[in-house]
Amino acid sequence: MAGDPNILSDFILPANQSVVDGSFFTFTGMRVLIGAPEPTSFKVLKASLAEFPALNGQSVATAVLLFPADAVNPPHTHPRSAELLYLVFGSLQVGFVDTTNKLYTQTLQAGDMFVFPKGLVHFQYNIDSKNSAVAVSAFGSANAGTVSVPNSVFTTGIDDNILAKSFKTDVATIQAIKAGLALKP
Amino acid sequence: MAGDPNILSDFILPANQSVVDGSFFTFTGMRVLIGAPEPTSFKVLKASLAEFPALNGQSVATAVLLFPADAVNPPHTHPRSAELLYLVFGSLQVGFVDTTNKLYTQTLQAGDMFVFPKGLVHFQYNIDSKNSAVAVSAFGSANAGTVSVPNSVFTTGIDDNILAKSFKTDVATIQAIKAGLALKP
Amino acid sequence: MAGDPNILSDFILPANQSVVDGSFFTFTGMRVLIGAPEPTSFKVLKASLAEFPALNGQSVATAVLLFPADAVNPPHTHPRSAELLYLVFGSLQVGFVDTTNKLYTQTLQAGDMFVFPKGLVHFQYNIDSKNSAVAVSAFGSANAGTVSVPNSVFTTGIDDNILAKSFKTDVATIQAIKAGLALKP
Amino acid sequence: MAGDPNILSDFILPANQSVVDGSFFTFTGMRVLIGAPEPTSFKVLKASLAEFPALNGQSVATAVLLFPADAVNPPHTHPRSAELLYLVFGSLQVGFVDTTNKLYTQTLQAGDMFVFPKGLVHFQYNIDSKNSAVAVSAFGSANAGTVSVPNSVFTTGIDDNILAKSFKTDVATIQAIKAGLALKP
Amino acid sequence: MAGDPNILSDFILPANQSVVDGSFFTFTGMRVLIGAPEPTSFKVLKASLAEFPALNGQSVATAVLLFPADAVNPPHTHPRSAELLYLVFGSLQVGFVDTTNKLYTQTLQAGDMFVFPKGLVHFQYNIDSKNSAVAVSAFGSANAGTVSVPNSVFTTGIDDNILAKSFKTDVATIQAIKAGLALKP
Amino acid sequence: MAGDPNILSDFILPANQSVVDGSFFTFTGMRVLIGAPEPTSFKVLKASLAEFPALNGQSVATAVLLFPADAVNPPHTHPRSAELLYLVFGSLQVGFVDTTNKLYTQTLQAGDMFVFPKGLVHFQYNIDSKNSAVAVSAFGSANAGTVSVPNSVFTTGIDDNILAKSFKTDVATIQAIKAGLALKP
Repeated sequence: MAGDPNILSDFILPANQSVVDGSFFTFTGMRVLIGAPEPTSFKVLKASLAEFPALNGQSVATAVLLFPADAVNPPHTHPRSAELLYLVFGSLQVGFVDTTNKLYTQTLQAGDMFVFPKGLVHFQYNIDSKNSAVAVSAFGSANAGTVSVPNSVFTTGIDDNILAKSFKTDVATIQAIKAGLALKP
Repeated sequence: MAGDPNILSDFILPANQSVVDGSFFTFTGMRVLIGAPEPTSFKVLKASLAEFPALNGQSVATAVLLFPADAVNPPHTHPRSAELLYLVFGSLQVGFVDTTNKLYTQTLQAGDMFVFPKGLVHFQYNIDSKNSAVAVSAFGSANAGTVSVPNSVFTTGIDDNILAKSFKTDVATIQAIKAGLALKP
Repeated sequence: MAGDPNILSDFILPANQSVVDGSFFTFTGMRVLIGAPEPTSFKVLKASLAEFPALNGQSVATAVLLFPADAVNPPHTHPRSAELLYLVFGSLQVGFVDTTNKLYTQTLQAGDMFVFPKGLVHFQYNIDSKNSAVAVSAFGSANAGTVSVPNSVFTTGIDDNILAKSFKTDVATIQAIKAGLALKP
Repeated sequence: MAGDPNILSDFILPANQSVVDGSFFTFTGMRVLIGAPEPTSFKVLKASLAEFPALNGQSVATAVLLFPADAVNPPHTHPRSAELLYLVFGSLQVGFVDTTNKLYTQTLQAGDMFVFPKGLVHFQYNIDSKNSAVAVSAFGSANAGTVSVPNSVFTTGIDDNILAKSFKTDVATIQAIKAGLALKP
Repeated sequence: MAGDPNILSDFILPANQSVVDGSFFTFTGMRVLIGAPEPTSFKVLKASLAEFPALNGQSVATAVLLFPADAVNPPHTHPRSAELLYLVFGSLQVGFVDTTNKLYTQTLQAGDMFVFPKGLVHFQYNIDSKNSAVAVSAFGSANAGTVSVPNSVFTTGIDDNILAKSFKTDVATIQAIKAGLALKP
Repeated sequence: MAGDPNILSDFILPANQSVVDGSFFTFTGMRVLIGAPEPTSFKVLKASLAEFPALNGQSVATAVLLFPADAVNPPHTHPRSAELLYLVFGSLQVGFVDTTNKLYTQTLQAGDMFVFPKGLVHFQYNIDSKNSAVAVSAFGSANAGTVSVPNSVFTTGIDDNILAKSFKTDVATIQAIKAGLALKP
C-alpha cells in the first residue's frame, strides 16, 4: 500500500493522446464549486485517475468534501492510500479504527489536518447543526478507491442470512437496514 | 499495496536474536490443529509476523480457517494484501465487493481456490448445516492485517448518531446491533 | 519514485511515543493562517514528516502556498514526489520542464488544479500585480523534499569557475547572481 | 523482491475478457488432486499467474507439493518471492543456503511451516521411505518463478568446459551428470 | 524513488519482438569509444532504456562520461535514480547539494567512486587543464532521466521576468545567460 | 525485485556517524587495482553496502571483475538485482538461463555490455587462453547478494543422498565434486 507503481518516464499519456501541452496537466473540474449553492447532502468531488488522466503514474490525487450541517461521510476505507484531510471551513468530528479495533477520534476546527492511515475504516461528521464544512483531502495514489461500508455490505445483494449471522442480529433487522439504504438520498 | 517493503539482506533477525539455525525459520503453531476437536464457532489460526518473526521482510503469510457447520467469517478487509484461499475440506460460499459496489460470489467445493483482491470487503460462509469446512489462505504480506466490518464499526464506540445516519436507520436499531455484537460468542 | 516505503503496521509511532489517541493524527500547524495578515513575500507552510510525525509510512503530505501580488515560487524540484496543486484563490502562471527540455505552462484560475510530474523543474508565478493567490498542494510522499534551483546552485559555495562554464557566462555574472541571492528577502 | 508491481485498480482483467463474475476469481485446477492416486515421483501443481489469471496484480500464489516416499525436490530458487511451506501430511527434511553459504536445515512434522527466504537456494526431501508427504506453499508474488539448479545448469547446453571449471571437476564427470539428468524420470 | 516497477516475468520483450537470443541482451553501442579521438567538449554515452530495450524492468543502466581537459558536466539531477560514478582515468572535482542546501564536494583520483544521492543537484568538473578524464556511471533505474539545470531553466522559454525574480537579478542578466546557453558548443 | 526500499531522506547515515562531508560519499577501495599485478584466478571487487555505507537507500552498486586467461566466474544468481556488465578489456563468453530453462549466450568483445536479468543463473568465461579480461558491473540494489551455485549446493553440507537424487547421479560422484570444490584455489 505504498502508492502506485513506479514509472519509467516523466509522465504517461493516454493511448490515443498525441499532442501535449500544459492543458493536459490541468484539471478544471473543481471550478463548478466556485459560487455554487451548498449541496443538501454530503458530496465529494474527486480529482483522481478517472477524472484527471495526467495523474497516471504520479501517485497523488485529491478530493473536495462538502458537508452540509449535520451531514456524515459514512464509515469507509480507501484500499490504495492513506488520506490527509485539511479542514478549510467549519468543524468536523473525525475518527478511524485500527486493526486492533481501537477507535481514534478528534474534533477538528478550521485549519486542522487529520491523517487517516492506509486501509482503515474511517468517517467524518459535521457536528454543527447550522453551518456547513468544507475539506480538501490528499491521497498518495492516483486511484485510492473507496469502499463504503454501508453500501458494500448492505446494498450489493449479500445474503440476508450471512449478514444476520455476521452482525449477530436477525434477518428482519438486516432487511430494515437494507431498505433504508436502498432509498435514494 | 504491492506487499511489504524490500529488504537489503537475506532475512531480518529480531533485535535480541543472535544465534540462528533452521528452527528460527520453522513455525510449529499449527501443530495444535492435528487431532484437535472441531471448534464450535469460526476460528482462524495465523502464521504472520506476530506469530512467526522469520516472516519479517519476506512478504508472505498464511492462515488456517476453521468453519463449523453453518459458520460465517463476517465481512472484513485486509489492508495490506490480497487473500488466496484454498478450500481443503467441505464447501464454502464466498464473495467480495469491488469499489463499484458489485458483488462477486461463488460456491466452492473441496480443492477449489478463490482470490479476494487487495483491500476489498469479503466474506466466507459454510452453507453446509452438518459438516465443517477447512481452508488455508495465503497472503502477499507478512502482516496483512484484518479489519472486521462488524467489530470495527459497531463495537469500538463510534457514536450511535453517526452510525444511524450512516446506515440510514434509527439509533435504536444501531443499539440493537451493538448489543448483539457485544455478547461473547 | 513511487512514494514512500511500505509499512507492516497500521501506523508508525515515534520511538519515544507510548500513549496514542486521536490528537497524534491531528496537525494544528495551519491554524496560524486563519485571519493572519498576508505575507509580503512568497511563503510555504508544510505538513510533512518533520512537522507531522503521524505521516510516517502513510505516503502523503500537503503544503499551503501563499503568493502576494507579483510573487514567484522559483524553479525547484521535489526529489521524492509529484505535486498536485489546487489553486484556492487568485490566479497563477505555472510551468514545468520535462527531461527533453520541453516547457509546459498554464495560467490557472481559482478552482483549477495542476500536476507537476515527479522530479521535474517547476515554478509558480502570481501574475496578478494587485491580488494575492493561495494554493494547497498534495504530495504522494510524507517527505517530498525541495531542491531550489537558485539556492542549491548559487548559494551553496559551488566554485564560480564551474558555474561560469556551466551557464556559459563569465565569473562576474555568476558573482552578481550570487550576490543578489545572498541578500535576505 | 518485495513482490509484484502495485496496481491502480481492484483487479486486472485479461485483454480479451469482458464479462466478469465470481468464476473468474475461482481456480478449480487443484480438484484433480481429490482422490487421485499418489504420484510416483515428486510433483508440483501451481496456482500462479499462468494457471490463474485473476492473480495478476494481487501479489500472491500457491502450489501443492506431492512427495512420494523418499522423493526430493532438488535445489532451486524462486527469483521473485519467498516461499512459506505448510506441511499437511508426512514429514520432510528441508533446507536453504544464505548468501554467506551457511546451510539452515530442519526436519518438519505434519502441521509445521517453514519459510525459505527470497531468492535463496533451497530443497525439500521426504526422508520417510514408506509414506508420502503433502505440502501447500504460499508465495508473495503471482509469478514467483522457479530456477532448478540441476536443470538450469546441466540440461540447458552450458559448455562442458565452463562447467568443469566451475565445479572444479573434469569434463567426464560433467557429462555423466548431464546424461543422468537428460533421462526422463 | 526505489527504482523501476517490479516485473512478473524474467524479462520484457518489445511489442514487435518475437525471436530472442543472447544478442537481445547485448549492447554494442559503446564500441565506438574504442580508439575514438577524444571529444572536444563534455560528452556522455548512455546505455539506458531508449538505447538498450533489454533493460526494461531490470532497474539498472549505465553511462560513459568523457571529460576533455577543463570540461564540466553542468549541475543537473536524475529524477529516477541515484548515480554511482567510477572514475577510470584522470581526476575530477565532484559535488552535490542536499535538500538543506549543504554542498558536499570531493576531488577524485583514478579508481575512486562517488555516489550522488537520488534526485539531488550534482556536477563533475575535470580540474586538470591538460589531461582528459573518463568515468563509468551506474544507475538503479533503466531510465534515470536527466534534468540539466542550465538547459531546463534558461533554454526552454521560461519568462524572463519570472527568472529575474527567481534569481533576484535583472532581466538583462537573464537574457545574457540565455544568449550564452543558446549558442551551440 | 524492483530494487531497494524507498527512503524518506536524501541519504542514510550509519547509526554512529555524525559529521558528514564529501568523503562519506567517496569509495577508494578500487584504488588497489591501479597498477596491481594480474590476479591468478577469477576475482571480484565489490562496492556495495558492506564496503560503501553511503549506498544505503540509493539502490545502486558496482563491482569490478578480473578474469585471468581461461578463468570462469561460475554459475550464480543475484537474489536482489539484475546485473549490467560492461566489458572494458578482453573478451568474454557470457550466458544466463531463464525460468523455462532456455540458455542465452553471447561472446562479448571489449566495449560490449550484457544484461543478466534479475534472479537468473548466469556465468562469464574468458575464452582467451592468453589475455585477461576486465569488466565493470552495475547493480540496481545496494546489496544484490550472490548465490554461487557450486558453493551453495556442494560446499555447505547438504546431504550427499539428497544431492545424488537431485542430480540423478550416485553418491560417489557427489563426493568427488565436493572434494574438488573443497580445495582452496
